[in-house]
Amino acid sequence: MRTFRSILGQGNSCYYKYAKPTVISFREFHVFRDIPELRKHRRQLLLDGKSVGLVPTMGALHEGHMSLARQAATENDEVFVSIYVNPTQFGLNEDLDSYPKTWDADIRRLTKLDEELAQSGKGRVTTIFAPTTKTMYPTLPPDSSLPGTGSFVTITPLANLLEGKSRPVFFRGVATVCMKLFNIVQAERVYFGQKDVQQTVIIKRMVKDFHLDTAVRIVPTEREKDGLAMSSRNVYLGQRRRKVGIVLHQALRAAESAYVMGGRGRDEMLALAWDVTNKMSEQQDGLAASERAMFEVDYLSLADPETLEEVPMVDEQRGAVLSGAIKMLPLEAVNHGEILGLGGDKVAVRLIDNIVLQPTDT
Amino acid sequence: MRTFRSILGQGNSCYYKYAKPTVISFREFHVFRDIPELRKHRRQLLLDGKSVGLVPTMGALHEGHMSLARQAATENDEVFVSIYVNPTQFGLNEDLDSYPKTWDADIRRLTKLDEELAQSGKGRVTTIFAPTTKTMYPTLPPDSSLPGTGSFVTITPLANLLEGKSRPVFFRGVATVCMKLFNIVQAERVYFGQKDVQQTVIIKRMVKDFHLDTAVRIVPTEREKDGLAMSSRNVYLGQRRRKVGIVLHQALRAAESAYVMGGRGRDEMLALAWDVTNKMSEQQDGLAASERAMFEVDYLSLADPETLEEVPMVDEQRGAVLSGAIKMLPLEAVNHGEILGLGGDKVAVRLIDNIVLQPTDT
Repeated sequence: MRTFRSILGQGNSCYYKYAKPTVISFREFHVFRDIPELRKHRRQLLLDGKSVGLVPTMGALHEGHMSLARQAATENDEVFVSIYVNPTQFGLNEDLDSYPKTWDADIRRLTKLDEELAQSGKGRVTTIFAPTTKTMYPTLPPDSSLPGTGSFVTITPLANLLEGKSRPVFFRGVATVCMKLFNIVQAERVYFGQKDVQQTVIIKRMVKDFHLDTAVRIVPTEREKDGLAMSSRNVYLGQRRRKVGIVLHQALRAAESAYVMGGRGRDEMLALAWDVTNKMSEQQDGLAASERAMFEVDYLSLADPETLEEVPMVDEQRGAVLSGAIKMLPLEAVNHGEILGLGGDKVAVRLIDNIVLQPTDT
Repeated sequence: MRTFRSILGQGNSCYYKYAKPTVISFREFHVFRDIPELRKHRRQLLLDGKSVGLVPTMGALHEGHMSLARQAATENDEVFVSIYVNPTQFGLNEDLDSYPKTWDADIRRLTKLDEELAQSGKGRVTTIFAPTTKTMYPTLPPDSSLPGTGSFVTITPLANLLEGKSRPVFFRGVATVCMKLFNIVQAERVYFGQKDVQQTVIIKRMVKDFHLDTAVRIVPTEREKDGLAMSSRNVYLGQRRRKVGIVLHQALRAAESAYVMGGRGRDEMLALAWDVTNKMSEQQDGLAASERAMFEVDYLSLADPETLEEVPMVDEQRGAVLSGAIKMLPLEAVNHGEILGLGGDKVAVRLIDNIVLQPTDT
């Protein structure tokens, strides 16, 4: 068992102790709420030659996050997980307040994961950074209006495409908070899920353009058995919307199949995807209000993997990204005894997914 | 004499050798054009416990820069000087192309300074970082249009005030390039001159808001004997414009005198400054075209030291910043044998200056 330098009572850092139901030993994470003590800890690791992998999260941890942390543990001595729900990435009418905050469950998940890692003899989850908003935004209050006031990182035009079209403030907020987190933790590697493909492209661009001394690692999307991409938002999907929500993945898979078969043209590929969503739409339309789950397609895209600009044809040396977003609408009528999601399926839920088409001519 | 690890021929780094006229020894700086070798060098210093102070410059080094480097050498083992003329801070109609590029003279100055430092037994100037634009802006070409494309740091509303009013793209460019430089060098301390007061406030804000792990040190403005603030732009001032250009400093000193005498009100202080500039304007107006040097006052400001917002009254606990900008207009007529500045005094030259009014109630 490893020992931790005690930092209890110093500054704003503390231990968070979690006792397992069947106690063999306590597992303790460093939990930092503020920066100076985290820096001290991290600098010592640097001087000791220990590497750090950072997994930035907004909490509500699920299997997707675990897979990021697991990957981080295979490549680093210590895994730091940040948990911070960043206000500047939520538009004024978006769901900041309703974002699930699940600290105890998050710690349980991380503890369980770390027990697994303890067996594998690789890196461990050691540190949680859970700052306050005053720490993250020390001067002006976080602003998610446009243009808004504050200190921001903007990545143009990448941040305005795809997801950025319907969420114009989102990637400014993401880039800004990630710049802060990266500077605070100074990890050798940072981990992001492939599921949020535009985020991965923007973070890679930010790291490159601003010469951040960290490697960006992208981890494949974790999926449910039927292929639904894992997401913190899935908790809002009751059984009925959950079942229909798979349509996005199915649509992208249909388009991918054209690529696998040698197709390269945009129209050919995306037509297959639209066929899938249209068919599902019609099917739902034909059901009673108490049986159907309606949705809208925001976009289906075939884009360059680095610029995210729409392409008429896949360049075989660059590959492409197939991606899409749908909005699962609130249920129109709910049945007695029906299994509902968090919030009773009363709010629209935006789902995104993507498939990377690898270059074939390299 | 110190030895340098030879890095000749590795990557894009190289030595720049400068032989003094009376050769006792060669002084050699590490000169890095690219980032990976600089990082390697810098990381070794970190592991060796050596501190680094960064002096970011655009070349055209003058006594003001030397005073930054001198200060850096008293607080760090090694001083890194970056020399890079950053295109994103020059507006589309500004003087990027005419910015003086004086590599040999810069190296001579640094060599001379380092000889002085060698005597004092403190830190030394060891490293010059002189990147290409492709290195600094690795994806999209540098863009100084608004809103423009690229990866930027924006600091709002600070960047829109004072200098930012007439140069709307300037501080976005400065913050962006400084973020890059800071990430590349990862200095313990970075050095800026008090002369560019808005720049110092914005850099401090950026470091605070983005949690950059570096300390910002502000070094007092170096002045000519008559009080003119040293600036790379002063080379554009011939004898006639140079003599009139002192009016800005004189105006600020007049306003400061009111503060020293116990005055706290904005009107009272700024009126004294305007008296000085108005009087000089009238005086020049009365001279023949071949004798006068006309100028325009862009602004005279009394502002809060952290927000740079105009204040009606100096808060004795916060102090204030008195600052101003004037534009020295091109000479209307030039005399035979007259001592002219670089470019023949044919272009307007913007001069800025400031005086910090220290808090009196602390």
